[in-house]
Amino acid sequence: MVAAGPRFAQLLVVGVGLIGTSFALALKAAGACARVSGLGRSRANLEVARAAGALDAIADGAEAAREADLVLVATPVGQLPSVLAALAPHLGPQVLVMDAGSTKRDAVAAARSVLGQNAARFVPAHPIAGGEKSGAAAASAALFRERRVVLTPLAENPPEAIARAEAAWQACGAQVLRMTAEAHDEVLAAVSHLPHVLAYALVADIAARPNAAGLFAFAAGGFRDFTRIASSHPGLWRDICLANHDRIGVELERFGAELARVTALVQARDGEALEQLFARARAAREKWLAGDFEP
Amino acid sequence: MVAAGPRFAQLLVVGVGLIGTSFALALKAAGACARVSGLGRSRANLEVARAAGALDAIADGAEAAREADLVLVATPVGQLPSVLAALAPHLGPQVLVMDAGSTKRDAVAAARSVLGQNAARFVPAHPIAGGEKSGAAAASAALFRERRVVLTPLAENPPEAIARAEAAWQACGAQVLRMTAEAHDEVLAAVSHLPHVLAYALVADIAARPNAAGLFAFAAGGFRDFTRIASSHPGLWRDICLANHDRIGVELERFGAELARVTALVQARDGEALEQLFARARAAREKWLAGDFEP
Repeated sequence: MVAAGPRFAQLLVVGVGLIGTSFALALKAAGACARVSGLGRSRANLEVARAAGALDAIADGAEAAREADLVLVATPVGQLPSVLAALAPHLGPQVLVMDAGSTKRDAVAAARSVLGQNAARFVPAHPIAGGEKSGAAAASAALFRERRVVLTPLAENPPEAIARAEAAWQACGAQVLRMTAEAHDEVLAAVSHLPHVLAYALVADIAARPNAAGLFAFAAGGFRDFTRIASSHPGLWRDICLANHDRIGVELERFGAELARVTALVQARDGEALEQLFARARAAREKWLAGDFEP
Repeated sequence: MVAAGPRFAQLLVVGVGLIGTSFALALKAAGACARVSGLGRSRANLEVARAAGALDAIADGAEAAREADLVLVATPVGQLPSVLAALAPHLGPQVLVMDAGSTKRDAVAAARSVLGQNAARFVPAHPIAGGEKSGAAAASAALFRERRVVLTPLAENPPEAIARAEAAWQACGAQVLRMTAEAHDEVLAAVSHLPHVLAYALVADIAARPNAAGLFAFAAGGFRDFTRIASSHPGLWRDICLANHDRIGVELERFGAELARVTALVQARDGEALEQLFARARAAREKWLAGDFEP
């Protein structure tokens, strides 16, 4: 009998924030990865990740990719092209590279434009997990457990690369799904990017008023939950808005039109239409919470 | 020495939902009320409230107000005029009547129009507590603990009536504040009513799409918290939108204009302005969470 070793010998995590550090912790906890090195701009985050056991070593530069059979780029999405460009000269022939960004058309485009023929080694991934807390200190081996991870494979990805990507996320406890990058960006614009922009806009608008303090003083639990995502990392969400600007723009325009309709109902004191709207929303949300909208 | 008895001898709660039942439980737990009777349209809620120890008796009708020295009307705000009209012939000379609604100008107007000179016995109150769960089954003696309760007294309220109202809510563990009804409705429109309408509108809009199931399938924790208030009671929020339609209309129009500005920033890919907006929102929210916006 030959004991099966870990699936991955050496993981390089580029960007040791919440997602990258949690991925390293989860793979290690699953025994799926023998060694992890980390590369990042924040020395403090790197030290936190090493102290937490996520990293065995802090890498000096992109050359560290030479020894890796798995690379996860978990930076804000706007940095993916420059990170891939730095990694490109050092990627071995058997490496699997993934990103973990919230937008996928830009990841596909970056891989093709920067990696050329080597784009076949890049499998775009989006773990639908995280939250308003960022940084290695918030990381957890359980972050992806029972969460969905969307892969948007390239036509040039060999099936073996996609299978390895699936296996890595499944080792983290995630449910892995495949979609096109176009479908991904359209869906996430509606159920994630739009709510983030709305929450940011509401808090910023209230904060800008002369009586902001008097307003915040009466904000309660509903406001706290509604605006939780407005505590998310501003640079990360700037990048998402830029990468998915067309689909988010469509969603914002659509919501603006819906808002105008609702405003007219309120101003016309149309109680029946308002109650029906509210009841439809509540029923749909309860159905969602009950798990009735599976992919 | 004379032992001080409970401050209130007999409380009548009209509307034994989350707020009314929690008020009865809290006053009893504080030893501030000797006996509680309940009046409501839902026999099931009344029985739940009695089984929970909130009610000593289920009242047959508005005549029960004759024996009460404290009456709390905790129905949806649209029912306040008819409830006050039913109670009016039975109110004793020493009774204190309060409501618990989320809008206050309509409560003031209802008291004056229905109670006439007896409006002096009515002190409008809004406990800023609750949540998307409704009904007696969700009630708790701790619901108002460390929460704010806004009183919007009438000019005709004797100071003694206001003091008794304050004492009742303080016995529930709440921090009691006074505002004008106009200021209350303006403030709550911004930090409570607007977010509720936005959350309802977002969920209803997504639910109405042909691909709703495919969208909800990828909604995650951010969506869940952002839309929690869209699980609130539709009839209750219809009433609030009708009672405060002018202020909510102003807030909706204001937010629509803000949304149009943000939409333009996204479509113009103005990353710098977006990041500044997001950073301002996050900073304000962190300041609020730190308790830096006290009234």
